Amino acid sequence: MVNIAVMGYGTVGSGVVEVINTNGDIINQRAGNEINIKYVLDLRDFPGDPIQEKIVHDVDVIINDPEIRIVVEVMGGIEPAYTFVKRCLEAGKSVVTSNKALVAKHGAELLSIARDRELNFLFEASVGGGIPIIRALNSSLTADRIEEITGILNGTTNYMLSKMFYEGADYDEVLKEAQDNGYAERNPEADVEGYDACRKIAILSSLISGQQVDFEDIHTEGITKITKKDMLYAKKMGMTIKLLASSKRHGDHLHAIVAPVLLNKEHPLYSVDDVFNAVFVHGNMLGDAMFYGSGAGKLPTASAVVADVVDEAKHLRRNIMTMWKNEKLTLLPIEDTEKQFFLRISGNAEERLAEVEKVFGPVQKVTVDGLDNEFGVVTEVMTEGDYLARSSQIDGILHMIRIED
Amino acid sequence: MVNIAVMGYGTVGSGVVEVINTNGDIINQRAGNEINIKYVLDLRDFPGDPIQEKIVHDVDVIINDPEIRIVVEVMGGIEPAYTFVKRCLEAGKSVVTSNKALVAKHGAELLSIARDRELNFLFEASVGGGIPIIRALNSSLTADRIEEITGILNGTTNYMLSKMFYEGADYDEVLKEAQDNGYAERNPEADVEGYDACRKIAILSSLISGQQVDFEDIHTEGITKITKKDMLYAKKMGMTIKLLASSKRHGDHLHAIVAPVLLNKEHPLYSVDDVFNAVFVHGNMLGDAMFYGSGAGKLPTASAVVADVVDEAKHLRRNIMTMWKNEKLTLLPIEDTEKQFFLRISGNAEERLAEVEKVFGPVQKVTVDGLDNEFGVVTEVMTEGDYLARSSQIDGILHMIRIED
Repeated sequence: MVNIAVMGYGTVGSGVVEVINTNGDIINQRAGNEINIKYVLDLRDFPGDPIQEKIVHDVDVIINDPEIRIVVEVMGGIEPAYTFVKRCLEAGKSVVTSNKALVAKHGAELLSIARDRELNFLFEASVGGGIPIIRALNSSLTADRIEEITGILNGTTNYMLSKMFYEGADYDEVLKEAQDNGYAERNPEADVEGYDACRKIAILSSLISGQQVDFEDIHTEGITKITKKDMLYAKKMGMTIKLLASSKRHGDHLHAIVAPVLLNKEHPLYSVDDVFNAVFVHGNMLGDAMFYGSGAGKLPTASAVVADVVDEAKHLRRNIMTMWKNEKLTLLPIEDTEKQFFLRISGNAEERLAEVEKVFGPVQKVTVDGLDNEFGVVTEVMTEGDYLARSSQIDGILHMIRIED
Repeated sequence: MVNIAVMGYGTVGSGVVEVINTNGDIINQRAGNEINIKYVLDLRDFPGDPIQEKIVHDVDVIINDPEIRIVVEVMGGIEPAYTFVKRCLEAGKSVVTSNKALVAKHGAELLSIARDRELNFLFEASVGGGIPIIRALNSSLTADRIEEITGILNGTTNYMLSKMFYEGADYDEVLKEAQDNGYAERNPEADVEGYDACRKIAILSSLISGQQVDFEDIHTEGITKITKKDMLYAKKMGMTIKLLASSKRHGDHLHAIVAPVLLNKEHPLYSVDDVFNAVFVHGNMLGDAMFYGSGAGKLPTASAVVADVVDEAKHLRRNIMTMWKNEKLTLLPIEDTEKQFFLRISGNAEERLAEVEKVFGPVQKVTVDGLDNEFGVVTEVMTEGDYLARSSQIDGILHMIRIED
């Protein structure tokens, strides 16, 4: 029997209990051992819930119990999660977490502590919920140099953008609707400003580069400025707009960015709609691959957490996770990256196009019926720095959206 | 240093050499050891190719060399691959194969020999080329009861069906084109009759059930009867036609089938086109997930083979692969499975619909402009046995295609 403790009995924590209760027979068979939840740590009590008899309020009960071999941290946030996880590892317990903020900030250190003690620190559920992208990078795509990893990593914003695209709804409407049906928080900042996706792409970037990528260094734009007018232009061009979190290799450098981008129909991420997440990977031998699934939600996330528990139960004294070094990776500055830009510009296309092309060189004009006092243009490929310099010479740029190649 | 031997210097074998030569530095780092190709077994010589110095013609050189820890079998076919692989395992060497025929027929026995000797027998590349579906089932989706696994597992037929759908080409045209550009063999039977997909779904069915699923037991239909008229009806219904290989749980039973089916736009496999493969999985906790990538091709397949080599190099004395028992699984008979059926019927819809509905109950009529002396109907859900009994009472059924729910 392998005794485990679950820290946090919120949505994911109760999901972990449900997954183990529902699928215990096959989980135990695959783990080669009976997984037994001995403690659940929470500040609250749950009278009437069968879990109540396992509830403890003091983390030291878990840390000081030598029978506990695996600890599941699903509290979220940096503190006290970080202190608790570190103490658990130092006490000789393997840890599973779904906490992207914790992994993005302290992953290198916690992986290193686990490695030194032949324990494991696994975090599949921290990126892409039920999509097994981290294990794929760790043990499946090991023959490849990963040239690109680009994901739709936030279900809330993908739901909102899908609604805006298919139903022509505007941002405020879909935000309210997403809040009403529980897809978005009352304070939606972490989702709509891209902060959540940013932490996730920081984790993936650290994994593929083997070095610490600080989320603060990643250029991050959310979806708050996307309007239904933008979607009309996207449709006219046969494209859609998605919030992509992306990390691409340019020579020896990595460039990471979170931003809404225009995506054409041929891109595998084009048809990933609603709350689904997906991760596109390009390897230098493998070519293109994509992983798709539920990026959040109680049971998909808990399923990923429990799969990590199974892996740790199979490897109680053997470290299996690729580390990344604490050494910080310097990202390629956004100014040096190249792409095409879509611009909405106020005024009349016939009157202003010559002026725009004088600054940007040849552009492709896009107009939408019903949007009369503005027009769109698509530039040729240029660096972001070049774009910034040139765009300052044009008045009346209403919005810029990058185009994914 | 870990010495390996590659048996077969054909497309995949030369790809394996290329992947190791190109990405050797990162592969060795991930394996925690230098991977060195010591021998390549082939009947032929390759004068002028740097590989020539490693070529051996006698498998005993490999089997009798205690320095060889891992053997890669990429010859294809059952014999002599089976005898060679078995002898390698019995001589204490782990084996990686891309050979679906071998795994479908002898997987249970070879896994069991590997298990008994604390070796590994891995075969990621045998299903879905570069898509890491086998490792996902083995180590990522371990908290779930897998209720369904459905894949587009053959790139040749997917390329052909995509051409027929988008370009309105007919079967013979696209087959010739696929043969001309190397996507289809001169003898295309294994692909177009579904035999290749059948072996792959047999392997996946064995993995998710833990028992031997014989490919001979799987109802298999190819795409040879699909016409451009069928595609016109599919388009009219907002659907497409894909060759799906599928294994679904019905209570305690599994039903496996390979057949062309009508698929609606909302299905994640709908937009998987050209030579790409994809595998859709439904877990009872995870919900829906999909894995997408190059299902064949020299380098994607070789990438999967080498990733298995890396895993075996990391686990030289530790068995890591889930087995399935040699005990044969009895599949649910196709007659007992339920679905909707699409029929093309000769004659005039107005005249014949009453007769058809008398036999099948209420149906949904589908007509296509330009197809005058025939019409289509979609039945309600019924068992395949029921369908067979009823359809025998109707004259002039031109074609039946199952509908994927």
